[in-house]
Amino acid sequence: MTDSARNNAVVLLSGGLDSATTLAIAKDRQFDCYALSIDYGQRHTAELNAARRIANALGAVDHKILTVDLTAFGGSALTDTSIAVPTTGENTGIPVTYVPARNTIMLSLALAWAETLNCRDIFTGVNAVDYSGYPDCRPEFIHAFETMANLATKAAIEGDQVTIHAPLINLPKKDIILTGLTLGVDYSLTVSCYQADAAGRACGACDSCCIRRDGFTAAGIEDRTRYRNV
Amino acid sequence: MTDSARNNAVVLLSGGLDSATTLAIAKDRQFDCYALSIDYGQRHTAELNAARRIANALGAVDHKILTVDLTAFGGSALTDTSIAVPTTGENTGIPVTYVPARNTIMLSLALAWAETLNCRDIFTGVNAVDYSGYPDCRPEFIHAFETMANLATKAAIEGDQVTIHAPLINLPKKDIILTGLTLGVDYSLTVSCYQADAAGRACGACDSCCIRRDGFTAAGIEDRTRYRNV
Repeated sequence: MTDSARNNAVVLLSGGLDSATTLAIAKDRQFDCYALSIDYGQRHTAELNAARRIANALGAVDHKILTVDLTAFGGSALTDTSIAVPTTGENTGIPVTYVPARNTIMLSLALAWAETLNCRDIFTGVNAVDYSGYPDCRPEFIHAFETMANLATKAAIEGDQVTIHAPLINLPKKDIILTGLTLGVDYSLTVSCYQADAAGRACGACDSCCIRRDGFTAAGIEDRTRYRNV
Repeated sequence: MTDSARNNAVVLLSGGLDSATTLAIAKDRQFDCYALSIDYGQRHTAELNAARRIANALGAVDHKILTVDLTAFGGSALTDTSIAVPTTGENTGIPVTYVPARNTIMLSLALAWAETLNCRDIFTGVNAVDYSGYPDCRPEFIHAFETMANLATKAAIEGDQVTIHAPLINLPKKDIILTGLTLGVDYSLTVSCYQADAAGRACGACDSCCIRRDGFTAAGIEDRTRYRNV
């Protein structure tokens, strides 16, 4: 591997608050960042427009949007329009906004790009504190994915190591926001809402909106999210 | 979970000899089979047509073809037309036909469908004997993927187990063919060639063709593969 490839990282970028912060952290750690967004048929395509703006604002070397139509499988309020997005902040069990195997699929695609780039570092913004109870946001999942990745690839054969960085995994939303602000993230560019409108304006009522708003409140930072009902 | 879901399995079906045999084995084990093919931009789209015929012939309950455009990443002779498919049976290291993270991605998509179907069994035709030296065809990779899958999904939270079945993993090609024949697989429907033409006729010269032909010879079975130069 060339030395330059050592400084490359693939960063999963949804367009939300967490992944924008993760991209800023990767850049702060001196990585040249290749941002990857997945259009999996989510309701909130405004997220992908946000991802473009964030990748540009934070100086990603490249940004790809890959399409994988998970609506073919359904099974989530985010990929099946017959399932309503709940408008409550209450968490009881795994919510209907959980998309089956989403993080596994996204990390797998990031792994593929990392391998073609000959780079060994992948960043994801998964978070196990102020999250929605998804099984694939837990540290033990990330560790297991990393172990698997180190058997799946050329790097494994060549004795090299892939690292899955999840720098937010143990941070409360408040600390994620404060970290991002010190790194220059403009959160007004990000879209977290599960059902944002085409202009990227948030509903203010879904789980993701509630967690985000509570984070700004806890951080004592003005919430510059654009809500469509305000 | 309902009892009926217990009998469902997602079977990865490329349209080649191995995956056709795997589908027949899953069916023989009394599973109702949901066949999944991935159009990842491979040169040999004739494989996908073969997959349709095989799914039908072997009585799959459903067959989905999901598109994931891995040509966006390139890095393989199968997804980047600027890289030639080698016309030799020699194996020295990982060949250029290796598609980065392909099996990881395919198993991840199978996992997603399995979760929406509420089934716990996934079949893959990976094989670690007469294979092309790909890192993601080894038993240790399959075991690591299974471990990861059991942390990634609702099943994990609910205390249930996902099983990745790789019934061919330790079989020589000869034994795969003999197994398939006892289960009624019509191998003339399958396409293994890395660069089959649109009609599904094989080149007879690539790695995959050589392994397949040697398998029929070793089994003492007539090779009914349609070669375009014969």
